[in-house]
Formats: sequence, structure tokens, C-alpha cells
Amino acid sequence: MTVRIFSGDRAVSCIDADDRGLAYGDGLFETVLVDRGQPVWWDEHWRRLERGAGALGIACPDQAKVRGECDSVIAGSVRAVLKIQLTRGRGGRGYAASTELQPTWLVSLHASPPATPQNIALRWCTTMLAIQPALAGIKHCNRLEQVLARAEWQDPEIFDGLMCDTDGRVVCATSGNVFARIGGVWKTPGVHRCGIAGIAREWLLHRLESADECDLSPADVENADAVFLCNSVRGILPVRRLGNRDWSPDANIAAIRRQLAQDQPAFPHLES
Amino acid sequence: MTVRIFSGDRAVSCIDADDRGLAYGDGLFETVLVDRGQPVWWDEHWRRLERGAGALGIACPDQAKVRGECDSVIAGSVRAVLKIQLTRGRGGRGYAASTELQPTWLVSLHASPPATPQNIALRWCTTMLAIQPALAGIKHCNRLEQVLARAEWQDPEIFDGLMCDTDGRVVCATSGNVFARIGGVWKTPGVHRCGIAGIAREWLLHRLESADECDLSPADVENADAVFLCNSVRGILPVRRLGNRDWSPDANIAAIRRQLAQDQPAFPHLES
Repeated sequence: MTVRIFSGDRAVSCIDADDRGLAYGDGLFETVLVDRGQPVWWDEHWRRLERGAGALGIACPDQAKVRGECDSVIAGSVRAVLKIQLTRGRGGRGYAASTELQPTWLVSLHASPPATPQNIALRWCTTMLAIQPALAGIKHCNRLEQVLARAEWQDPEIFDGLMCDTDGRVVCATSGNVFARIGGVWKTPGVHRCGIAGIAREWLLHRLESADECDLSPADVENADAVFLCNSVRGILPVRRLGNRDWSPDANIAAIRRQLAQDQPAFPHLES
Repeated sequence: MTVRIFSGDRAVSCIDADDRGLAYGDGLFETVLVDRGQPVWWDEHWRRLERGAGALGIACPDQAKVRGECDSVIAGSVRAVLKIQLTRGRGGRGYAASTELQPTWLVSLHASPPATPQNIALRWCTTMLAIQPALAGIKHCNRLEQVLARAEWQDPEIFDGLMCDTDGRVVCATSGNVFARIGGVWKTPGVHRCGIAGIAREWLLHRLESADECDLSPADVENADAVFLCNSVRGILPVRRLGNRDWSPDANIAAIRRQLAQDQPAFPHLES
């Protein structure tokens, strides 16, 4: 892992013990696919980071400076994953933060994840997502719910788990958003109560001919005609199994993957 | 600030950029009053840390080793605040964690906070606490709700703010638990849906002649005969004002403070 760390504009050698990111998860992150040396959906990731920084009142570093450091750690890598993390900065003890803190930010390059199976198997998680509108949608660093949910299974055949909120509505997988085809329309849960406004999810909501945000129960998803996950590193992941429900390959999902591949060649459509 | 950092049994010079505490708030902390060179309520703090580590599945370091390092950073300080932080360890990218991680832990010594006023003023926070039984009670590092709540005011006359959960029940202040005297009985909210099982709170529930855990509305607290906050660094803090409600000094609170001072001389009772 190559990493560069900054406090405001200044390069530093390590994370300080009193960084508020470490103390309180007081920060944000973005995980960006790198393809042929370029960060994919950069503008969309940056806008989400800025939106999150606004919601939390964290100073956002200069985009050009961050992008320059990202390009530097990418260093022409053909395919990799870039992580950007931003914290409120160093803060001593106590929740009160000076408004004059220099934010801490770091960029790191990671190996591309192993090849994703063409059709994935999911499970239901028992860990629930709490309803917190003040933090919904943004990609902040308070992620214990996802950590606990991901620790529920070890079976490598299970690619991810779907999570419900504490009122029983389906929200997302631990590492992606979910779409279900119901009555000829793609449906995905809203992200105003909890969950993350995924970059791939946003692309889909804008590009699909018919796609709605709406409440979904676990039964709605299990009874859907087709289901897929999406995230900005892996693109669109058709689901072949969820609990006891199996799905055959779906022509609608194949069409969406072709559409994504045309729009964003970093996600080539491999006919399965 | 004096700090010592460890990865498992090994002293390290700094927090690594891929520490899961930094990435996800994947950790726990304790804030311990130091009085006459000794950590106050050490056993209680350690038990809560162990309970939290169990709930999150984080390996807990050896108590004697941690205590030795704490004594070393305390180095005979007469009065200070000791912070212990524990994270799951270093973890790369992604929520899945190896079960073989070496936990990261750090101990740091901080100046004693400025003298607390004898009777404090509170406000209501608009930031709500999400209901998440899987994380309730433990002192984990996902604290963005408290950070947002504490950022709601700058007025130095306001000592702390009371927070309600998303269903409108009173839970706690940003940095302490709350007790309200209603019908001759001390009442405090439960901590099974959200909030932290404070060490001073536990002491009070065991030592007060009549104290109940129960749901409280904001009106219940505002209409109470007396209200105090408590935490393990400052002890018992009588409330003189909450929004538009004022309280006179209360003989029952004075009696509790005398009882605490007898039991734990680190919290001397100064007659106001």
C-alpha cells in the first residue's frame, strides 16, 4: 500500500494519536476505481466528499491538490483501488472541535480486488442499520454497523449481505446498493434515513429508463424478478441467490451492464 | 499530551494509516480521572472496555500490561485525565476483518479539565441519537452524533446539551448521563437502545436508595424537581438551568455528592 498523509497543505509522516478520525470516526472516505491510470467517476466521488464535508462541517482540502497527490500514488497503475480519507484534524480530548482545525487527509493505493463472480450469492444480515437522517447518504467513517454485519459470515461463497434498518426496511448490502426489478420497474431503497448515496446508484437512477426510490421489504426483494448490487469499484453485480431464492441470468441486467460499459469503459461487459 | 501506542504487545511509534480505528471508528475508549497519581474507578472502566471488546469482537490486551503503561504515563501526576483507546488493529480496505488482528491500543495523559461550575446550564440539542441496540451501552468510537450535537452551540455559559433519541425520548448529555428527580424518585433513561452505560451512572444506580431506569420525555426532565448530570471525570453536576427552566440548589443532590465524596475521595464535596 502506497500512502501519503497531509495535515492541511503540509505532508506529514503519520497519523497523530489525537486525530479525531481515530478518536471518533470524525471523517469521510471515498473508494475509487483506478482504470488505465485514471480514477473512474472522479467528479462524482469528489462531489460526494464535498457534500459530506459540508454536512459534518469539516474543512475540505483543495481538489486540485488532492487530485495531484492521487495521480502521484496511482503512478500509472493499470488497475487498482484508490482510497481518499478526510478527517476533521487533530483535536485533543472531548467532542467540541475548534473551527480552525487543519483537516487530515490521506490518499492510498490498493490492489484491485479479486475478480468478482459473474453472478453473486447474498445473505440477510441480522445486524440492523440505525435510522439517522443527519448522517444518511454521506460516506462517513462511523462504520461499526457494517463491520458487525460483515463479521456475520465467513463462507467465501457469500459475496455480501443485505441489511435492513431497525424498522425492517431493506437498505443496502454492506458494500453496495441494491436494485430489485418489480412489476417491470427497477426499485432501490432511499438513502435519506440511513445507507449511502452510492456513485453507481446515482448513475443508475439517472440512466435507467424506469427506476424508482421506494421502501422495500425483505419479501419484496426475495420475490423480485431480478436483483443486482452495485458499487463504484465493481460496477453492476447480478445476484443469483439470496437465502433460499435463486435467480437465472436476467436479460434486463445484461442490458444495463452493456449500457454501463458503453458509458464507462472501466466496467467492460463480459457476456456470461 | 504524553502518549504510548502499541500493536498487540509491541510498542510502535505511530498510528498506521490503515488502522481500522481511523478507517471505521472500529474501536473503543475510556476516559479515566487520575487523582493523586491513581486512576479512579479503574476496575469499572476496565470491565466496560472488556464488555465493549466482547460486543465488537475486538481482542482485548492484557489488563496488567495496559495498567503498567497507564501508570507509566501518569508518572505520579496529581490530577489529570487518562485516555485509553483500543482499536481492532490494522486492516487494509474493506469491512471484513481477519480474526487474527493484533489490536492497536494507546494510553495518553491529558490536563485535568478546567474547574466545573458548581451548577451548570444545559440546552436541548437538535441532533438526535439513532436507536441501535447492537452498539448501545458500550463506549465505542462511532461518535459523529456527539460531535454534531456539541457543534450546535458556542456559548461558554452552556456546559452541555441533552440529546433525545429519534423517537423523542431523552437519552443523555453529549458527555454524561442525566438523572431527574420525579415524585421523590431519581429517574434516568435506559441505555439499551442508545447512549452509554456511564461509570458514575452505574455507581448511582447501585448506591442511591431510590433510582429507576425509565423512559423520560423532555417535558418530564423540564418539570422534574431536580436534575443532575454525571460522568466519571467530573462526578455529579447539579443543573441550574435547562432552556427556560431554572432550578435552585437541591438538598437531595447535595446529599448524593456527599455520599460520592465519602465513597470516592477523588470527588470532594465542596459546599456551594
